[in-house]
Parts: sequence; C-alpha cells; structure tokens
Amino acid sequence: MTRVFNFSAGPAMLPEPVLSRARDEMLDWHGSGMSIMEVSHRGKLFLSVAEKAEQDLRELLNIPDNYEVLFMQGGATLLFSLIPMNLAAGKVTQYIQTGSWSKKSIAAASKICPVEVVADSSGTGYDRAPAQATWDTVPDSSYLHYCMNETIHGVEFPFVPKGLDCPLIADCSSNILSRPMPVNEFGLIYAGAQKNIGPAGLTLAIVRKDLLDLCPDSIPDVLNFSKLAASDSMLNTPPTYSWYLAGLVFEWLKEQGGLEEMERRNRRKAQRLYAAIDGSDFYHNPVQHDSRSLMNVPFTLADSSLDAEFVRQAEAAGLISLKGHRSVGGMRASIYNAMPEAGIEALVSFMAEFERKSA
Amino acid sequence: MTRVFNFSAGPAMLPEPVLSRARDEMLDWHGSGMSIMEVSHRGKLFLSVAEKAEQDLRELLNIPDNYEVLFMQGGATLLFSLIPMNLAAGKVTQYIQTGSWSKKSIAAASKICPVEVVADSSGTGYDRAPAQATWDTVPDSSYLHYCMNETIHGVEFPFVPKGLDCPLIADCSSNILSRPMPVNEFGLIYAGAQKNIGPAGLTLAIVRKDLLDLCPDSIPDVLNFSKLAASDSMLNTPPTYSWYLAGLVFEWLKEQGGLEEMERRNRRKAQRLYAAIDGSDFYHNPVQHDSRSLMNVPFTLADSSLDAEFVRQAEAAGLISLKGHRSVGGMRASIYNAMPEAGIEALVSFMAEFERKSA
Repeated sequence: MTRVFNFSAGPAMLPEPVLSRARDEMLDWHGSGMSIMEVSHRGKLFLSVAEKAEQDLRELLNIPDNYEVLFMQGGATLLFSLIPMNLAAGKVTQYIQTGSWSKKSIAAASKICPVEVVADSSGTGYDRAPAQATWDTVPDSSYLHYCMNETIHGVEFPFVPKGLDCPLIADCSSNILSRPMPVNEFGLIYAGAQKNIGPAGLTLAIVRKDLLDLCPDSIPDVLNFSKLAASDSMLNTPPTYSWYLAGLVFEWLKEQGGLEEMERRNRRKAQRLYAAIDGSDFYHNPVQHDSRSLMNVPFTLADSSLDAEFVRQAEAAGLISLKGHRSVGGMRASIYNAMPEAGIEALVSFMAEFERKSA
Repeated sequence: MTRVFNFSAGPAMLPEPVLSRARDEMLDWHGSGMSIMEVSHRGKLFLSVAEKAEQDLRELLNIPDNYEVLFMQGGATLLFSLIPMNLAAGKVTQYIQTGSWSKKSIAAASKICPVEVVADSSGTGYDRAPAQATWDTVPDSSYLHYCMNETIHGVEFPFVPKGLDCPLIADCSSNILSRPMPVNEFGLIYAGAQKNIGPAGLTLAIVRKDLLDLCPDSIPDVLNFSKLAASDSMLNTPPTYSWYLAGLVFEWLKEQGGLEEMERRNRRKAQRLYAAIDGSDFYHNPVQHDSRSLMNVPFTLADSSLDAEFVRQAEAAGLISLKGHRSVGGMRASIYNAMPEAGIEALVSFMAEFERKSA
C-alpha cells in the first residue's frame, strides 16, 4: 500500500494513525465484540466516546465553561440557515463578504432575516480580509458573521474583530484546530468536520450559553440550538461513527502537542509553499500577503493552457486533488493538519521541476 | 476477537462482511492510496461509489424511474419537519398515530401545518396497526403519513393503505430493506440509516418526482427536496463515508439474494422468537398478532423485578442491548437484516434457560 499526498479541500486527508486505529477497531471496539458504529448512542460505550471527544476538544481549544459544544449534522451550509433561524431574534444581522462561502451564508440568511453586508471584498476579487476600520457596521444587530478562512479564495483573517456591540460569529470550517483560537471572544464558532476534524456528516458548533435564550420555540426542535444543547446533542441519533472519528483526531492532535504545535507546523508548511510560489514568475497567488490562508493555497500558472497537464503529472507523482475550485480555476493546495511537511516538500519539488520542463 | 449478538434498536448490528471490507479498505480504497473518507465528493472516485450505491438500492427496492433517491442528513427526526415544510403546500395533512415515532412526527408537523390525526391506537396501548376501514380521513389533504414499523412498540403495518385521494408517505426507518416494498404506491418513503442501511448520520428519502414541484423556494435550499434532487444530493458535502458504507450494505443484500430472500429469513427469525414468547407464560408480547413487527420484538417478563438480572445474564452470554426502551420498559430484541438466525437461536435458548432457572 502506498498512501498519496492528498490536497483535497474537503473531504480531506486524515492523519494516518487515526485511520489505522479506526481500521483496527472496526469489528471490535475495545473488546466489546462490536464496532462502535453498531452500538446505541444512549449506551455507556458510546457515551464514553462522546464525552471524551468533547472533553479533548475543550482542552484543545480552551473552551470556557460558559460555552456549549454541539455535535450536529448538515454541514456548515445548514448552519448558514440555522444561525439566523436561532439567533437573529427579529433584528438586523451583519455579514462580511470575503469569498464564495461567506456569500453563500449571506444568501441563506437573506431568506430568514434582514441582512446588512457591512464589508465586501468582491470589488478586488476577494483578495483580502478587509480591515475592520473599513467596515460600515450598523447598530442594534443580533450578530456579526464572517468566514474566518475562505476555502476557495484562500483568504484567512489575520485578526479577530474587536470592540463590536454584538456577538461575533465565525465560520471556521477550514481553519478550526489549525491554531489556537480565542473562543471566549466569539458568540458562536462553527465548522463542518470534513477538513480538520474528521469525516463529512458531522458539524461542530461552539456557542456561548446566554445566546441559547434567543432560540425560538417555533423552529423544529432538532434544529434548535437550545434544545440540542439541553439534550447533549442527542435529541435524536447523532452521527456516532463520525463523532468517534473526530474523537480520534482530537486525541491525535493532543499527542502532537496541541494547537500551538499545529500552528508552528502549519506556518512552516504554508510559508514554504508561498515562498515557492512568490519566488517564481511561473506561479502566482493573488491574495494580499497579510490575508493569505494557512490552510488553502490557490495558485495559477502563467500559462493556463498547462493547467490540465500540471494536474495530470502531479497525480502521476502521487500529489492528488490539486485542481482549483471550478468557480475560480487554476490550482489549489489544501494543506490541513493531516498534510505532513513531507507533502509540502514533494509539492514544491514537483512545482519546480514542472516549471523547469515547461520553460 | 469474539463478535457478539447485538440486539440494539439502532445504531444496530451491521453485517460482518461489510465491516470487514470497510476495515480492509480503510487506508487505501481500491488502490487509490486514500480512504474513501478522504476524497472529494465531486471527484470521480466518490461519484462512482455514490452512483453504484443508488443503482443497487434502486434494484433492491425496484424503484421506478419517476422517483428520486435523496441521500440526506439529520435522521428521520429531521424529516418529520422537512416533509411538511416541503410538501404540505398550505393544505391539511393526515397522520396515523400508532406509537412513539408517529407521535413525534405529528408533534413536529403540528409546528408547521394543520394536522389531522385520522387514526390513533393510543387508546389500546399502541398494540395494533388500525385497520384502514376505521380511519376517519379528511378530503383535500396534502398527504397521509404513517410509520410503517414502530421501533419502540413493535407494531408493523401488515398492509399498505389503498385508495387514498392523496399521496401516501411512510416512515420506514426500522423496516426498510427487510422485505420488498411497493415503492410505486407511495409519494415518499424515508428512513434513517442506522437500522437496516448503515451508520447513523445518513437518511434516505425516495420521493415521486411530481411532488417536488410543491417544495417552496422560501425554505433553506439545503432542506429543499427539489433542490437536493436537482443536485444529486450534493448541494453541499454529503456524508460520504456513510454513503459508502450504505453501498456496501446494498451489495451485501444483493449477494444474499435480495429482499425476497431477506423477507424469508426475517419471517423465520421473527416467527421463531414470537413462538418462544407465546409458548411461555413467563414472557409476553402485547401486540396483536397481525401487527407484530418482524424487526423489533418487545417482550416483558412475568416478574418485572427480574428485568435487570435478565439483561445482566444476557450480556454475560453475549446477547447485548436487550433492555427495552425507557418509555415502555421490559425487553426488546431488534432483529434487523444483519442479525443472523444463529443470534435468534442463541436468544431463544437463553430465554428458556432463564425461565427454567427463575421458576
């Protein structure tokens, strides 16, 4: 068996030790004679897995006690609607538009509540996280929402907004667990699992408890943050196997040294790749330097007619899923926690060789 | 490793060959160097898995071409709300109440649209599927909904309602794939995966295409049956690994001989267990004979003070999760497709021995 370097934006590469352990435990979890996939979510076996996963996540992100962790389904896309359904509370909501994903969250919220787009970088091709001083905020809003890392455009906020008069909400789908985050500065952060957490089908939301009072009884119970919190995310059967796998990822992160160590590695990885791009006239990344994502690195070739050949040769070299998102073209290397530094070295070497051969 | 006989109501036992194959493919799916969990849902590897799973399901259930198959998230509980959100179309809806799950579906729908409960067996302790002649139906409704198999009360409809003037909708969470079903007689059937399909976190809906015209644009796209159908259930990232596992279960079912063969086995299994219960004064099942579930067999002990000891000794004998649902007490043996006939024999032998020792 030869494992490849998989640069997919999500579902994405997972740590090999996590997959190996899941394989070894598949038919017999801890001597139970069952897969953890086969046991009741209300039994003591699964509850031990669920609680340990939440506890490890709380340690990793240093989540304060006045925050609930919700293990949900439906992806960040469902959260785009659930956040205004639960928390708009009849007031205007504020959104920052910095790329495809925040744009989708705005479209979803606009079906549900008044939306004010208080900053928008589409005019410069989504090439930056707009400085807070440029935001045109409005008073008396229920919250301000932004996407902390735009997976498609490769734009990551280098700052956490400060001094707002409303709760701050962040979509962290593609950068959660990549580095420490000041959870206490947010009203809610959320993430689909399929980048840095585990398999697709699990969505995490970390929400400050006082906000749960806003959730209206009129929405379906299973979509109500308050009712999910009160039932420990078990109002109905949760995605148990995905929850278990996320727990294995959290254990692996702790073994690696936690999020400070992941940030060091992720900065090294990203700097190595951006340096290779910037040091060449053949490759180009369009994002302003201070807003470049540590997780998703889009780049173009000087001659886009070579794109298909680049992807083909990369795959032959075991460098998979480098094709850019269909909406922006070019290439994209997603380099989440599970991508080892050896994968970056292999990519950088391949890029240099491809440039040389194409000259 | 000793695998046990796991009678959990869900998440439930899965076929051992399915788990073995998932284990063997965990780190390297078909020589790709990746887990199928790690690959993009829009790439050719996963699309081949997704399409094969749908095709096999269509074969197994003989699903007509004018039906869409949706691979969703959120469980049957979310569908309790999505069905009226998508299909109520401003008209009254009809519901049959035959146990805990249909009662929950009624509560969820009542938040969304007018609901008429046209039959209700609560008066006799949810011991039967009420004959269609006793239903007090109303005209001009958008649909009639029932739960084909009540997982907690062990009540299964022995007939498919006929001659209705509205589409028929069935929650088949705990009996889908246990036997052939006349899909063409339904407007929509749906099921959470965690009994007879695969792991928790996947929900299937099979819907007649003409009903999709009813789905209002006002609801979130990701909850809109019509938009899910138009995107082949990939409006956002689906639960890919659960979809893959469901596909392995479908392949296994085909290898076993399809749903006719599963029905033969399931009838043998259920008859063997009900015969053991009925042949004893120590055990009792409260459900009318013609409405007894082939999948979920609740039973009580003549002396309920022995319940805990029964469960304890059963577990020691490798017969797991026989404790009844907390809302009804007693015991329950869930005997889905993956439960082999040897599991029934082991249970029946244990029950006889326990009765003998308790006499």
